[in-house]
Amino acid sequence: MTTDPRETTGRPAPQGSRIDPYVDSYAARAQGMVASEVRALFAVASRPEVVSLAGGMPNVSALPLEEMGDIVRRVTTEQGATALQYGSAQGDPALRERICEVMALEGIDASAEDVIVTVGSQQALDLVTRVFIDPGDVVLAEAPTYVTAINTFAAFQADIQHVAMDEEGVLPEALEERLTALAAAGRRAKFFYTVPNFQNPAGVTLTAGRRRRVLEICRRHGLLVLEDNPYGLLRYEGEAERALRADAPDNVIYLGSFSKTLSPGFRIGWALAPSAVRAKLVLAAESAMLSHSTFNQLVVGRYLAEHPWREQIKEFNEMYRERRDAMLASLEAMMPPGTSWTRPEGGFFVWVTLPEGLDAKAMLPRAVGERVAYVPGTGFFASDEGHRNMRLSFCYPTPAQIREGVRRLVGVIENEAALRDTFGTTPAPPAPGGDAPTPDLP
Amino acid sequence: MTTDPRETTGRPAPQGSRIDPYVDSYAARAQGMVASEVRALFAVASRPEVVSLAGGMPNVSALPLEEMGDIVRRVTTEQGATALQYGSAQGDPALRERICEVMALEGIDASAEDVIVTVGSQQALDLVTRVFIDPGDVVLAEAPTYVTAINTFAAFQADIQHVAMDEEGVLPEALEERLTALAAAGRRAKFFYTVPNFQNPAGVTLTAGRRRRVLEICRRHGLLVLEDNPYGLLRYEGEAERALRADAPDNVIYLGSFSKTLSPGFRIGWALAPSAVRAKLVLAAESAMLSHSTFNQLVVGRYLAEHPWREQIKEFNEMYRERRDAMLASLEAMMPPGTSWTRPEGGFFVWVTLPEGLDAKAMLPRAVGERVAYVPGTGFFASDEGHRNMRLSFCYPTPAQIREGVRRLVGVIENEAALRDTFGTTPAPPAPGGDAPTPDLP
Repeated sequence: MTTDPRETTGRPAPQGSRIDPYVDSYAARAQGMVASEVRALFAVASRPEVVSLAGGMPNVSALPLEEMGDIVRRVTTEQGATALQYGSAQGDPALRERICEVMALEGIDASAEDVIVTVGSQQALDLVTRVFIDPGDVVLAEAPTYVTAINTFAAFQADIQHVAMDEEGVLPEALEERLTALAAAGRRAKFFYTVPNFQNPAGVTLTAGRRRRVLEICRRHGLLVLEDNPYGLLRYEGEAERALRADAPDNVIYLGSFSKTLSPGFRIGWALAPSAVRAKLVLAAESAMLSHSTFNQLVVGRYLAEHPWREQIKEFNEMYRERRDAMLASLEAMMPPGTSWTRPEGGFFVWVTLPEGLDAKAMLPRAVGERVAYVPGTGFFASDEGHRNMRLSFCYPTPAQIREGVRRLVGVIENEAALRDTFGTTPAPPAPGGDAPTPDLP
Repeated sequence: MTTDPRETTGRPAPQGSRIDPYVDSYAARAQGMVASEVRALFAVASRPEVVSLAGGMPNVSALPLEEMGDIVRRVTTEQGATALQYGSAQGDPALRERICEVMALEGIDASAEDVIVTVGSQQALDLVTRVFIDPGDVVLAEAPTYVTAINTFAAFQADIQHVAMDEEGVLPEALEERLTALAAAGRRAKFFYTVPNFQNPAGVTLTAGRRRRVLEICRRHGLLVLEDNPYGLLRYEGEAERALRADAPDNVIYLGSFSKTLSPGFRIGWALAPSAVRAKLVLAAESAMLSHSTFNQLVVGRYLAEHPWREQIKEFNEMYRERRDAMLASLEAMMPPGTSWTRPEGGFFVWVTLPEGLDAKAMLPRAVGERVAYVPGTGFFASDEGHRNMRLSFCYPTPAQIREGVRRLVGVIENEAALRDTFGTTPAPPAPGGDAPTPDLP
């Protein structure tokens, strides 16, 4: 006896249909995969007349292209049999040795055995999440935090809980409080995700004193730290902080990247993890992609071996410092009262808080109309927060473009404030106590 | 009131411990991530004195390295600002156009809009699985099937069910039967995974008549086909078959790769999917890695634009044909009675069935001792099958090495058979009807 399988599956044959015939076939996690609402706007924002303070793209035009061209040519002609072949899922051993030299600049003493090379540090984030997160598992993250980390945690159905931060980074007492509350509820967090240096999006850096306290709290609670450090070497003033991993090798998974210190075009990032975790990450990487591009790994390895890369980073830092200064000076000179912003010592981003009653997301279409773009703050929270915030990037536009961009932005903000004063009608964030989770921001 | 969180989590602080302190932190899916048992042996097998008939590595030394070196140099110096920057998660539009030209060779009429570029077709497999598979969901796969596809499905906790195949590919009646049984049990499969050309590991090709029947069955059952076609263009005799996707654009996700027709070192593969599915895959790719290497995509695009790649594939095919012929002739000349094997018209692999009572996995250490390596059949099943099988690759060794490798292998098999005849003691596969699932193989 047979049944009609179409009846059983309850689905029409998809042929020729304009409606998604697979809508009831997707995994539960696919529900968490949604396109950003502001994506369409960014297509407009990429037009040349728009000054984009939105993107986090490094300024790769500062790279020595002729020299890079020579390196990629020689990797092909001299190492082709290796470079053009499959590699191991863990990554090229020589590159992993070089990566340890890079990490040593931030106090990390690591073995190449515990490094895995990934497709940017984004893939490392993804691998860590897939190894640790079951649906409903708690991930702690700074408020605000990196938008694509939120996406990745959400794609694995994590319960993302924010921990408040201020100008000195995450608040240790807020972290402790959250862990205690979880424990009291019989729950635990799988890890605490942090970008300790020149945070994306807030631009703030965790101070030395707080690093000690955060590590002490995490160690006491048996909580793994996921330290994401793409910007650490891009410091324009002040003293470098030691990586969290430097002082807690068994409690920290450290993520690094060459996307900002060399180029994102090769997609070379890495994770450094306690050995047992690293073994899991390698297996996850193998099922995710077999192996990363051997060619790209040999290119980056050769660049590190042959090029004075520390000097190159110094050059980058001079360029980015000038851009950061242009942005901070412009904000200082032009921003209306009631607006505040962070003062990053490195990295790419400034986090702006608008005067009360203004909504950065609602304002974005008007800003793009005035030929300036930014990222509204709401995207950097798993909860409904950040309406008064925006992330401004100074990495890609020139100082002159930055000044012009801020000038246009200030015009838009002043206009919005005038409308608010006259009509009291700018779209307000949801009232506290409503459907939105309690905000963690101070 | 606070509790000691260490008590709540039940875990000691991990500092300094030699035991994995995170063992109870991993996600359930991480239990499915296990290292292959034969991996350690393959480290030994990579020694130069061993003839490896194990690996599926293409022979990249046949590539024109000087010309490739010139291409990668010009991509850097002429397109550096784009090549070294972030790209889109969907992939470079020009490369996606070129990919459509490649697919046209197998009868596919596709829009570049529906193509997503991935880190080899392995990542495409991973993205499809994460978009469709909840724990316990059924995936249908040929028996045997590609080992890393099994790993990926298992990593997302799929219930992998095999469908029997023979020399003409998967058996349509077995597929229908399985679907009917699932429907009767109130279950459905999410997709049917197939490698229709020169299958890995079996080397067989789905015939034209069976392609029609398989598509008809899948369409009737509303079942998506996941067509994995890395070897399709590597045909050494006979007529090319139309891709399944060519005749069922709304029912098939097609996976392709440049790993075998150009080089695996750039890790450029792709998926072609119905629009709604493609949109989900792009979002999944973004959270998995932000974007693939722009550099690599421009290199492959430029290679396809500037190099006579169809001629290059013809050259590859002449080289691989000679190797396949060497393997088939050696097997014919030397294999003991009771041994059988497939006769692939293309691709990289021959699937051998040993005389009754022999176990290819148990025999492997002895084979490596005799300086020849292969992959035991058991790895290509999600169930406990394939003990009498081995996969032999002819892609990487030279014809002379292949002949020598088969000669050594035959010596090992004859020794095993003699031991079996004398002592009746070679390790036997589990008795049917035991713990193992019912085998699907004919």
